Amino acid sequence: MKEVSILLFKDFETLDVFGPVEIFGRLKDVYSVTFYSLNGGIIKNSHGVNLETVSLEKILQGTDIFLIPGGWGTRKEINNIPLLNNILQISQKSQFILTVCTGSALLAKTGLLNGRIATSNKKAFQWVISNNLNVRWLKKARWNNDGKFYTSSGISSGMDMVLGFISDLHGEKIADTIASEIEYNWQKDKTIDNFSI
Amino acid sequence: MKEVSILLFKDFETLDVFGPVEIFGRLKDVYSVTFYSLNGGIIKNSHGVNLETVSLEKILQGTDIFLIPGGWGTRKEINNIPLLNNILQISQKSQFILTVCTGSALLAKTGLLNGRIATSNKKAFQWVISNNLNVRWLKKARWNNDGKFYTSSGISSGMDMVLGFISDLHGEKIADTIASEIEYNWQKDKTIDNFSI
Repeated sequence: MKEVSILLFKDFETLDVFGPVEIFGRLKDVYSVTFYSLNGGIIKNSHGVNLETVSLEKILQGTDIFLIPGGWGTRKEINNIPLLNNILQISQKSQFILTVCTGSALLAKTGLLNGRIATSNKKAFQWVISNNLNVRWLKKARWNNDGKFYTSSGISSGMDMVLGFISDLHGEKIADTIASEIEYNWQKDKTIDNFSI
Repeated sequence: MKEVSILLFKDFETLDVFGPVEIFGRLKDVYSVTFYSLNGGIIKNSHGVNLETVSLEKILQGTDIFLIPGGWGTRKEINNIPLLNNILQISQKSQFILTVCTGSALLAKTGLLNGRIATSNKKAFQWVISNNLNVRWLKKARWNNDGKFYTSSGISSGMDMVLGFISDLHGEKIADTIASEIEYNWQKDKTIDNFSI
């Protein structure tokens, strides 16, 4: 069983988290989802979603898949040094790191994306890239992968990325089956970006 | 402020709930989301999502928008008479009732959809319609609305339906803006169904 460890923080974006949870949850014999936050406990967002989390210190030795969502909360967390230090340590030791939306800003801030090709939400793009100009930011991409780092564009693109991730690891047929099961019109081509500016 | 009251039960489908939550959450000055269950308390699903809920008895006099998701849990809840009685009473007194996926089976079981046009998940279609043959079930539709009842197809179609609902109530421009903000390729035409069988 592979663990999908999802980082939460106050005012995370709802769909950044639960789109991927729905898709990983479809392969329940392969993936198990757990929610984490810097200090554990209940994490809330402005959509009225409250979730219980485990402290990040439980996975400082790394995890199989570390997923970092975006949302307005990233504007505050970008200055949260203990959180960034944990993201750095966990990401160094994990097999794959996936970001959705402005989650890539938090990962970029650690320096781990330096020299790598990454993307992010197009409506928050200037803010995201301002946090680290040493990343090779892609202005037009639904998602991208560079080594173990998968980064997606805004919010709903996380679902296309996770289907792409599953396609890379398990084959396109399995990803197609999941998309069909959830009746999702999967945008398979990561280079098509209808929201680039 | 309009209340969006979302019914949860054990093994609800993750995206049936959180796709709509993301979209209603974008109009935070208009809509407020609250989670309910038959008896209140923590509700879990197989994807590892645990949410605190309020008892349905708090809204027996109706709500603005009552949303019923689907998921494997519906196979059990279809025989839960106290729950069905609550769904009946709340739906009779609420302004709008929205169902996602097999949530329409629960609503149909109350008799409130008799003679009305409705749709549901295409992979579970035979089971859904077997619960009430007096509904005019649509085999091919992304979603449908008949009076105050909005029913959608499988899982991710709930997002298209809620954008359609917002378009009906607030105009297409606002729905377009939300779709763009969440970088979602909204399928606007409710009659196009790539998953019909």
